[in-house]
Amino acid sequence: MAHKIYNFSAGPSKLPEVVLEIAKNELTNYQGKGFSVMEISHRGKDFAEVLTNAQQNLRKLLNISDDYAILFLQGGATQQFSQIPLNLLGGRSADYIITGAWSEKSFSEAQKVSSYKNAPEHQIRLVASTQHSNFTKLPEVSEIKLNPFAAYLHLCTNETIHGVEIDPNRLAPLPNVPLIADMSSHILSRPFDIEKFGLIYAGAQKNIGPAGLTLVIVRRDLLGLADLNTPKILDYAQLAENDSMINTPPTFAIYMAGLVFDWLLNTCGGLEKISEKNQQKADLLYSTIDNSENFYQNLVEKDCRSRMNVPFIINKDLDKENVLLNKFLSEAEKNGLIGLKGHKSVGGLRASLYNAISLEEVKVLCDFMQEFQRTA
Amino acid sequence: MAHKIYNFSAGPSKLPEVVLEIAKNELTNYQGKGFSVMEISHRGKDFAEVLTNAQQNLRKLLNISDDYAILFLQGGATQQFSQIPLNLLGGRSADYIITGAWSEKSFSEAQKVSSYKNAPEHQIRLVASTQHSNFTKLPEVSEIKLNPFAAYLHLCTNETIHGVEIDPNRLAPLPNVPLIADMSSHILSRPFDIEKFGLIYAGAQKNIGPAGLTLVIVRRDLLGLADLNTPKILDYAQLAENDSMINTPPTFAIYMAGLVFDWLLNTCGGLEKISEKNQQKADLLYSTIDNSENFYQNLVEKDCRSRMNVPFIINKDLDKENVLLNKFLSEAEKNGLIGLKGHKSVGGLRASLYNAISLEEVKVLCDFMQEFQRTA
Repeated sequence: MAHKIYNFSAGPSKLPEVVLEIAKNELTNYQGKGFSVMEISHRGKDFAEVLTNAQQNLRKLLNISDDYAILFLQGGATQQFSQIPLNLLGGRSADYIITGAWSEKSFSEAQKVSSYKNAPEHQIRLVASTQHSNFTKLPEVSEIKLNPFAAYLHLCTNETIHGVEIDPNRLAPLPNVPLIADMSSHILSRPFDIEKFGLIYAGAQKNIGPAGLTLVIVRRDLLGLADLNTPKILDYAQLAENDSMINTPPTFAIYMAGLVFDWLLNTCGGLEKISEKNQQKADLLYSTIDNSENFYQNLVEKDCRSRMNVPFIINKDLDKENVLLNKFLSEAEKNGLIGLKGHKSVGGLRASLYNAISLEEVKVLCDFMQEFQRTA
Repeated sequence: MAHKIYNFSAGPSKLPEVVLEIAKNELTNYQGKGFSVMEISHRGKDFAEVLTNAQQNLRKLLNISDDYAILFLQGGATQQFSQIPLNLLGGRSADYIITGAWSEKSFSEAQKVSSYKNAPEHQIRLVASTQHSNFTKLPEVSEIKLNPFAAYLHLCTNETIHGVEIDPNRLAPLPNVPLIADMSSHILSRPFDIEKFGLIYAGAQKNIGPAGLTLVIVRRDLLGLADLNTPKILDYAQLAENDSMINTPPTFAIYMAGLVFDWLLNTCGGLEKISEKNQQKADLLYSTIDNSENFYQNLVEKDCRSRMNVPFIINKDLDKENVLLNKFLSEAEKNGLIGLKGHKSVGGLRASLYNAISLEEVKVLCDFMQEFQRTA
C-alpha cells in the first residue's frame, strides 16, 4: 500500500480518484465488451457513444448552445497560439493583452503567423501588458485602447505560472470584436457565460483529463475564415465539419475527459458547487500565506489572485540562498506533498488547487506550511 | 467474464495483452508511488525516466544512432503531411510518390504549404502514381523521374487502406535527396536500415500505442531549415532541442508506447522475431484468400501485398448487393471477430494483423472465413 500522496502539480495534475478507478476497472475490458477503449476504431459505434456523451455532458456543464462547436484537438494550448490567428485573422489585425507567461507566448506565436503578410493592417497589436508589475496585477481598463475593427481580442483568463486570474464573469462582452480566451488552467472551475466569447480553449491536463487533448469551443459564425492554404488538420471549419475526426483523435484522452465531465455533473453537482469548493480551498491557502507574518508571500494583487494556481515564496530576507525553499520541498515530499516546486521561470513554490483536489488536501498542505514555519 | 474478442481493427487497434495488464495494474499507483503516471509533471524525474527509457528502447529496436532525433509529437501522421514541407522544403521543391489514399493526402497537404510561394522551383512534384491501377501495385522504378535537387522524396511505405506495402529493405538510398516515409501502419513490424531515410514518421495507434501520439525520427542534419515564422510547436529543430517538450507532451501515450517497446524488445525478442511471426500471419491469411476459389479476393499484386493490412472482398459476382458482406460482418461479430469492415472509401473487408495479433488469432479468422464460405 502506497502512502497517501497530496498532488499539487500544475499539470499534468491530479485526476479525480473515482475517475481513475473507473478507467482502471475497465482498462482491459470496456463495459464488459472484451476490449480496451484504446483498441477500437474512432469511427465505430462504441467510440461514437464516448464522444457524443462527452460533448453532451460538456454542453450541460457549461450551458453551451448549438451556436458553438466543441472540438477535441491535439497539440495543447501552444498549438492554438498559432491555430487561432491562422483561422480567425481573415486578413485583419488582432489585439492581445499580456498578463503573464502564457499570454506572452500566445502573442509571440501570433506575430509569426501574421508576419507572413507585411502590412500594418495585419499586425498583431499588444494593447495592454502587466509585465512592468512582474505580472502581479491586471491592466487598468482605462489604459486599454482596443481596435474596434480587430478580428478578435485575445487574453488568458488564468495564468498558470504567475497565478493571475480574470473571472470570466467580470468581463464585459465587446460589441463587434470576438473575445478569445486561453482558459487552460481554470476551465470548469466555475460557471460562466460562454456567449461572451467567440472562442475559448484549454489544454486538458489540468481540469479536463490527461495530457494530449486540447478543448476548443468556437462560435460557428467564426468558422470558415481560414486561408485556403491552411493545413486541413489546423482548419477549425473542417475539424468542426468532421466532428474533430479529420484523422484519428486521441481516443483514450477523450474517454477520460468524458469520465471527468460525468463526475463533475453527477458526483460534484455541477460547476456552481465545484466553484464554491474551489473558493474555500483558495481562501484557506491564501489566508495561510497572508497570516504567516510574511514568512510566506504571494505577490499577486488580491482582486486577481488565481483560485487554481497559487505561486508563493518564502520571504527572501529569511532565505537568500533558497536553503529554506529546498528544505520545504524535500520535507513536503517526505510527507507525501508533491508538485509544489514553482515553474522554473519564476522559481519559488506553487500549489495548484484544481477541481480534483479536496478541501481536506488543502488543509494538509496548510498544516504542513504552518508546521514548517514553526520549526524553520 | 467477457467472451474472447479477436480484434482486427486498422487503428486504433489491439494492444499487447501484457501491456494493457501492466497499465491497468499501475493505473492508480505508478510503480507503487501513490499516483498515476497521468498525474505527474512532464518535467519531473519520474516522467523523465519514462521518456528516456522509451527513447532508449526504441533506439535499440530500430538500431537508431545519435545522428537521429526521436520526437514524440501530436496530431497524427496527417499533421506531419504539413509539418514535413514546412520544415524541410527550405525554399526548394519536393518529389512525391502516390501509392494509395495516405500518400495522396500527404501530397495534397504538401501542395498547400508550398503554394504560399508561387514559383515553379517551389512546386510539390508528383513523380509517380499508381491510381490508374486502383492502387493495387507499385510504380515501375523506370517510370519515376526524380529531381536530383529535390528537398526530399516522400512516400508511404504501407498504405493502410489499400493494403500496399513497400519493404523498406528493398529501397535503394538516393545519393543526395533525403528519403521520407510515412510508416504509420507497419513501423516496428520488421527490422530495416534507418540510415536510408532522412525522416520517418508514424501515428502511434497501430504498432506503437494508443492514439494521440506521433513518432518522428529525423536525421539531425535536416533540422533548422524551417522558416523563421514557423510556429514553434511545428518546428522540428525546436522540438528536438526541447526533447519533444516545448509544451506538455501526451505523457500517458508515451508511457504506453514505452511499455510496447519494452514488450517488443524483451518479450518478443526484437524485430527479427516479430517479423517472422508477421510473415507467418500474413501467409496464412493470404493463402486462405487465394485458396478460396475466388470467393474471397485480394486485388493487390503479390509482391507488394501488405503484411499488416489485408483488404479483401467477397467476389462481386456472388455478392452484387453486399448481402454476403453484411452477413459476414454480423456473423463475425457474433463470434467475437471485430474490426473487419473495410475503410469507408473502398468498402469490402479488411483484417489488420499488427504486432499484437497472434498467429492463433489469425487462424481463428481463417477458420471463420472458410466456414462462412462453406455455408454461404
